[in-house]
Amino acid sequence: MKGTVGELGEFGLIDKLTSRLTTTPAVRLGPGDDAAVVTAPDGRVVASTDLLIEGRHFRRDWSTAYDVGRKSAAQNLADIAAMGAVPTALLLGLVVPGELPVAWPTELMDGIRDECQVAGAAVVGGDVVRGDSITVAITALGDLRGHDPVTRSGARPGDLVAYTGWLGWSAAGLAVLSRGFRSPRAFVEAHRRPEPPYHAGPAAAGLGATAMTDVSDGLVADLGHIARASDVRIDLRSGLVDIPSQMHDIGQAVGIDPLQWVLTGGEDHAIVATFPPETKLPARWRVIGEVRGHSARAQVTVDGSPWTGTGGWDHFNTGEKEGRTP
Amino acid sequence: MKGTVGELGEFGLIDKLTSRLTTTPAVRLGPGDDAAVVTAPDGRVVASTDLLIEGRHFRRDWSTAYDVGRKSAAQNLADIAAMGAVPTALLLGLVVPGELPVAWPTELMDGIRDECQVAGAAVVGGDVVRGDSITVAITALGDLRGHDPVTRSGARPGDLVAYTGWLGWSAAGLAVLSRGFRSPRAFVEAHRRPEPPYHAGPAAAGLGATAMTDVSDGLVADLGHIARASDVRIDLRSGLVDIPSQMHDIGQAVGIDPLQWVLTGGEDHAIVATFPPETKLPARWRVIGEVRGHSARAQVTVDGSPWTGTGGWDHFNTGEKEGRTP
Repeated sequence: MKGTVGELGEFGLIDKLTSRLTTTPAVRLGPGDDAAVVTAPDGRVVASTDLLIEGRHFRRDWSTAYDVGRKSAAQNLADIAAMGAVPTALLLGLVVPGELPVAWPTELMDGIRDECQVAGAAVVGGDVVRGDSITVAITALGDLRGHDPVTRSGARPGDLVAYTGWLGWSAAGLAVLSRGFRSPRAFVEAHRRPEPPYHAGPAAAGLGATAMTDVSDGLVADLGHIARASDVRIDLRSGLVDIPSQMHDIGQAVGIDPLQWVLTGGEDHAIVATFPPETKLPARWRVIGEVRGHSARAQVTVDGSPWTGTGGWDHFNTGEKEGRTP
Repeated sequence: MKGTVGELGEFGLIDKLTSRLTTTPAVRLGPGDDAAVVTAPDGRVVASTDLLIEGRHFRRDWSTAYDVGRKSAAQNLADIAAMGAVPTALLLGLVVPGELPVAWPTELMDGIRDECQVAGAAVVGGDVVRGDSITVAITALGDLRGHDPVTRSGARPGDLVAYTGWLGWSAAGLAVLSRGFRSPRAFVEAHRRPEPPYHAGPAAAGLGATAMTDVSDGLVADLGHIARASDVRIDLRSGLVDIPSQMHDIGQAVGIDPLQWVLTGGEDHAIVATFPPETKLPARWRVIGEVRGHSARAQVTVDGSPWTGTGGWDHFNTGEKEGRTP
């Protein structure tokens, strides 16, 4: 695939990108018109937007275009699942420099398409314009299938706190990459291509989850959002969190307590939720704490004490933080 | 309102922006959770995404942040109306440099909010990240209210071609601005803040429109999309197009035939549609041509001949074109 996006032109690039897409029965009208049409059988639609920009959310020397596509889509589709909804569709806004080889957006599109397929969704539309730096703007849509949305504000004292998916793997992988290594592969892969447990979101809604979110900013930070919205304190038990032995090994090699990755590393898009205490959770959910009454002192505690390690992710104040793309 | 977005931080800026929003009964869950929830009573949702970047789609010295907000929202909401749907919701992705004064995104948000109110929609979510240049990524949603979507592919030979709204006003305003003038105000205002006839989209669907689009790339270019998708030729009658006398005056002053603005100027977001020949159109629609059988020679003709002036808008090949933001 030769040439740059500037040589191909906007309409040529859009034709090339849309020609690679697949569809689903939910798509009533796909790309190529003023807007797309997607079924919303529930009578409500769930929608979320995220932006990823080069140098901040991804690096072309660390991730392939395909992986950036997988990750960009995963981040947004996980937001839909974390409401308890089934992802149905995705729209892509893409800013690309004119001198960028056509292969890059093409492989990005393949990654987005394939991640959509994993989640049961399809790319239905988008926009492409030229700009100085690569920016990926994604909007995902989903259907609640009759469930009420599971917001961040329903956690009640006594509820269990549980998660499913992966925690800290992306941060450990980034620590490896940022020190110039390419292995252990499992963690590097987890950084390049998260695997959100999409099915777990609607399943948790069916199990009666009282609050839910995906872990994008870090477990403590994202549970902090739930604690604030629900006016409760969430106490995590560090001994209940799963830290695989390989993650301990990486931690030792780079001089970082792996608990920090698990508690503050985002981007794995695990799903964390609160459930009434009597809930019988499926095997892949892991209980890691409990909801307590409101505390002025701290929103999230670890073994009863405020977590004093590095916190979540703020895109405007990131220079000195550990474990995120600079 | 003092300070820069870098000083305020991502979460602070998001709080400030969302605090200015209004809502509608269609919004079941607004900003602040993993995703928004909006009613979709039709059981299908219409969705469209557009990107605007500084220097290409707007200039801070020519437009206020408020106007950029109005225009960004209008562009997307017009896409929803052009499918025959009623706009319901909008999501905003915003890239802002850290040194940008907080007032700029705040006024942008006000403009987006107010344009949404004109269209009957509300801002329900978004994302804010720091980057080198301002980028506005908007996704709009809408509801078909039981009508089938009016695509670009349904035009049939014999159909009327008609539009409602404004044509060429934005291009005339840009010609004025790019020569250093600030008047006539009506045209400069039209460039800064288009007024798409949102209500006309669903109304046209109700009148039996066979194909429809909004004029974003220019009348000839956008009718070319309909002609290609419908496999027909569209013949415009230049004498039927409305060119106000003031537009003639501007044309004379700057040495440009105003017909060129009307035929190729985009960004006014007029709505143009094809209708069965017996359709009785309301007074604000203006018939400007007729659909003919497929022609290999040209998709759109003006008075029977291919239009030889400048064409539509391709974001990757724009340097030498007349009448668009450089």
